[in-house]
Amino acid sequence: MKSEIRNPQSEILNFPIGIFDSGVGGLTVYRALHERLPAERFVYLGDTARVPYGTKSLSTVERYGIENAKFLEAQGIKLLVVACNTASALALPAIGNAVDIQVVGVIEPGARAAVEIAGGKAIAVIATEATVQSGAYAKAINQIDPHRKVIERACPLFVPLAEEGWANSEVARSVAEQYLQDLRDADLGALVLGCTHYPILRDLISEVVGDIALIDSGEAAAAEVRSLLESEQLRASQTTSELAERRLCDDLDHFYVTDAAERFAKVAERFLGTAPSVLEAVEVWGHDELRTY
Amino acid sequence: MKSEIRNPQSEILNFPIGIFDSGVGGLTVYRALHERLPAERFVYLGDTARVPYGTKSLSTVERYGIENAKFLEAQGIKLLVVACNTASALALPAIGNAVDIQVVGVIEPGARAAVEIAGGKAIAVIATEATVQSGAYAKAINQIDPHRKVIERACPLFVPLAEEGWANSEVARSVAEQYLQDLRDADLGALVLGCTHYPILRDLISEVVGDIALIDSGEAAAAEVRSLLESEQLRASQTTSELAERRLCDDLDHFYVTDAAERFAKVAERFLGTAPSVLEAVEVWGHDELRTY
Repeated sequence: MKSEIRNPQSEILNFPIGIFDSGVGGLTVYRALHERLPAERFVYLGDTARVPYGTKSLSTVERYGIENAKFLEAQGIKLLVVACNTASALALPAIGNAVDIQVVGVIEPGARAAVEIAGGKAIAVIATEATVQSGAYAKAINQIDPHRKVIERACPLFVPLAEEGWANSEVARSVAEQYLQDLRDADLGALVLGCTHYPILRDLISEVVGDIALIDSGEAAAAEVRSLLESEQLRASQTTSELAERRLCDDLDHFYVTDAAERFAKVAERFLGTAPSVLEAVEVWGHDELRTY
Repeated sequence: MKSEIRNPQSEILNFPIGIFDSGVGGLTVYRALHERLPAERFVYLGDTARVPYGTKSLSTVERYGIENAKFLEAQGIKLLVVACNTASALALPAIGNAVDIQVVGVIEPGARAAVEIAGGKAIAVIATEATVQSGAYAKAINQIDPHRKVIERACPLFVPLAEEGWANSEVARSVAEQYLQDLRDADLGALVLGCTHYPILRDLISEVVGDIALIDSGEAAAAEVRSLLESEQLRASQTTSELAERRLCDDLDHFYVTDAAERFAKVAERFLGTAPSVLEAVEVWGHDELRTY
């Protein structure tokens, strides 16, 4: 970090954008952000020591989310994106209270995009158990349109299928049919992919549910982040020639994980076609002293 | 706890047996112990806040294992069973060093049982990614018979399938075929179920691999615990009339989870046909102060 800041605003706009996820799934959000904002640098934290969040409780997800957010804030970021749907659904207010930077989750952008595209019809949301139990998507949709019908459904096997690299397998097809086949006839206006892993299964989901608009909440959040940076004049000031050099996972984007960096790199390769150039394992929690009983 | 102990040995033998697992899977080991040792009381800890361990690193699994073991030791137990295969494979020495009670894992009992039954033929082991990477089963088997051929294979989708209650589904059958079909012709003497969840899929696995002896490491560990208690004269002294009253999950057995007790009770019901009478959420780590950067 610089020892002296002469022009805080011009410093801040070249700070990176922070992204955290429970693990590797948020890389789909990183990709969406990178595509829309090629001049920006990113700091990504995957909480691989405690993944998944989707089966955990409100208080635990809040605690994990705050620890992750504080770690990223300490890296010097201008904005925090909570890429994880579960953390966005359960812990966004707690995270917002815990840090001094602006925080963007994926639920509200996803909900807005779904309402816009659904043309008055019902909206289905597929997500983790915790996100579905929180009812966060239904609340966000009904805040925009109180009478809109929302169907929420947990699809817990989609995450391990995506991580296993079985997104296009016959097994994944059977699982998707089991979870989603009845939605084909539900006269939906939109289906929200309410978990960062689900875009990996996008083609398969689309085949099973038929001709319904799929909303990727990560894409919707990335669009919102771009608008926000523009309206607050916080876009990075890289030149065009520098931009031409940027590519996904290059060494200007820093990746941190709380465990098992090797496995993260392997799954990143599967999701993005490339592994991070800069990847480091860190601890984000205060466990220095073991509790004594 | 009693303030004064007049006869330490007779006190200790009525202490409960501690069991920990990364989550709910260790309930299959609890059941095996309960069946063989109906006079014993059990204290079970499921680390549901940090489950699963099977995709995590050595150092992380060691840290989690030590925290769990210390929590159970503080409850006053006479023996600790590490029901989790991953924790047994990666962290047994570290756990043994961290506590003053005797610690029994599931790897060595499973390996011994497999060698005994396999009659000189090759042994296959199915387990989590971390257990397979550790090579712990192959080491344990080759310590008994250095020339025995061991095939180790990770089956990561089995855990979510068992937890989802899909053990007998067509989807589970396709997954099992994908993972295991070639083992049918491998001329195996035994197949070790090297993860606490896998006994839930036992019938299905058996159909796919054909006529091969399946070894449940949890069952093998339970048998070993009984021998150990007998040889050290540590079996509980309940009377026959008291025993007749005991049933699985009654209020003499205490269950702790680190998160989401409700979900644990639901999956326990699915695994054991009954939910714990005494179930409490606890914290086993020293996270009281968030780290500051």
